[in-house]
Amino acid sequence: MNIVCIGSGNVATHLAIAFKAIGVDIVQVWSQDSRNAEILAALTKATPISDWDELDRSADCYVIAVKDNAIASVAAHLTDVKGIVVHTSGATPMSVLSAVKNGYGVLYPLQTFSKSKAVDMTRVPLCIEADREDSLEKIKIIAQLLSAKVSVVTSQQRGILHVAAVFASNFTNHLYQLSSELLEQHQLNFDLLKPLILETAEKVQSSTPAEAQTGPAIRNDQETIKRHLDLLSSTPGLQQIYQTLSNSIKKNDL
Amino acid sequence: MNIVCIGSGNVATHLAIAFKAIGVDIVQVWSQDSRNAEILAALTKATPISDWDELDRSADCYVIAVKDNAIASVAAHLTDVKGIVVHTSGATPMSVLSAVKNGYGVLYPLQTFSKSKAVDMTRVPLCIEADREDSLEKIKIIAQLLSAKVSVVTSQQRGILHVAAVFASNFTNHLYQLSSELLEQHQLNFDLLKPLILETAEKVQSSTPAEAQTGPAIRNDQETIKRHLDLLSSTPGLQQIYQTLSNSIKKNDL
Repeated sequence: MNIVCIGSGNVATHLAIAFKAIGVDIVQVWSQDSRNAEILAALTKATPISDWDELDRSADCYVIAVKDNAIASVAAHLTDVKGIVVHTSGATPMSVLSAVKNGYGVLYPLQTFSKSKAVDMTRVPLCIEADREDSLEKIKIIAQLLSAKVSVVTSQQRGILHVAAVFASNFTNHLYQLSSELLEQHQLNFDLLKPLILETAEKVQSSTPAEAQTGPAIRNDQETIKRHLDLLSSTPGLQQIYQTLSNSIKKNDL
Repeated sequence: MNIVCIGSGNVATHLAIAFKAIGVDIVQVWSQDSRNAEILAALTKATPISDWDELDRSADCYVIAVKDNAIASVAAHLTDVKGIVVHTSGATPMSVLSAVKNGYGVLYPLQTFSKSKAVDMTRVPLCIEADREDSLEKIKIIAQLLSAKVSVVTSQQRGILHVAAVFASNFTNHLYQLSSELLEQHQLNFDLLKPLILETAEKVQSSTPAEAQTGPAIRNDQETIKRHLDLLSSTPGLQQIYQTLSNSIKKNDL
């Protein structure tokens, strides 16, 4: 089994390293920026390329992990490669690859990646989709090499998963940031909140979020809510978010 | 060192068990509901009481862990006890205990507790405050028995910490719930999001939330934001939260 990695960002890096670690050969790393191609190629003992003319067209699989809006232009260079072509985007329909002739699909790792933090790929949910049955089998074999959690999802379901991930990750991280700014304004250290943040995430690994919900809004504690809104009077943006989310929690209680 | 525990809910239970585990004697557990007093007293080899006339007035410390709106009425029974009196509430000013004669204060554990899940109290930030210097020394000694993370904070700072905890825990849990409902509507399993939720919380243990922020709003990816809002068109409540939080993330980027 060998792979060409198209892209050199966070997702490309984590996937390429995880493939390499399980013995899959990374034959080439393509990046528009030759320096970036060289860095990831060095990590995975691959050949860096930036010129499409140098592409090895006989690999088993081409993994596209570039910015969403660059997938289509990259795919145009992969229409007649021998192996299967997959993109890794949560937000992009599979149909962006429809000009690829020998089978295509999606391998979407549902996780947040940053270059500075290792991720155990065996626990990352991989959501896969394919243009036809034999492509799906090929992608499933590749995905199951990487992770114990492989699910077949449609493009529409993947779109929903991507929105849900924005709520569960991007928005929660923003709430962490708002709380950290609030503490900073009052000479308090964000470290004080870190155990609470971790415990809140750990709770829903075994309980449902509905069971785990606590706080003034769910108990309809108007006195505390009013005191909190008063404390936020100098930061109307925070006040609005407090109000919006408290109302949403109360509605759930109906 | 011995303690009377006033209350039998989540906070009372976790604190009493943690005290017992480090060798502090729990002499009595008071609860308005005698059944609840008996349950926690049995766990901590204490005497259950429900009648204030039975209160042992000679303990070293009285830990009040009852609902916020019951603290004042409970404190009225503790004005002339020998030991120090502390409440454990994030949202309640210390002054609610001002009729207590022999020293009082606050011992606020900044964590979310549920009866079904053990918590390592040695890692829970304990925020303390006291009416005077010698009370503060006593509360500090008690707090440092339990946890390695003891901070002195004012009532006003504690109020801010409590609001920040609502953002970082109650509201994030609600976002988990909204994402789980969205998945359920589309026949997708919430398990798919659990590794992402945990990783998002783990990231800010070592990076700042600002450094960790990802997603369409921070990169001002209008196309994805529009697609997400379209996907949420049948759930206007979610659409409003998506819009509010995305706008807040974009503002931070300025």
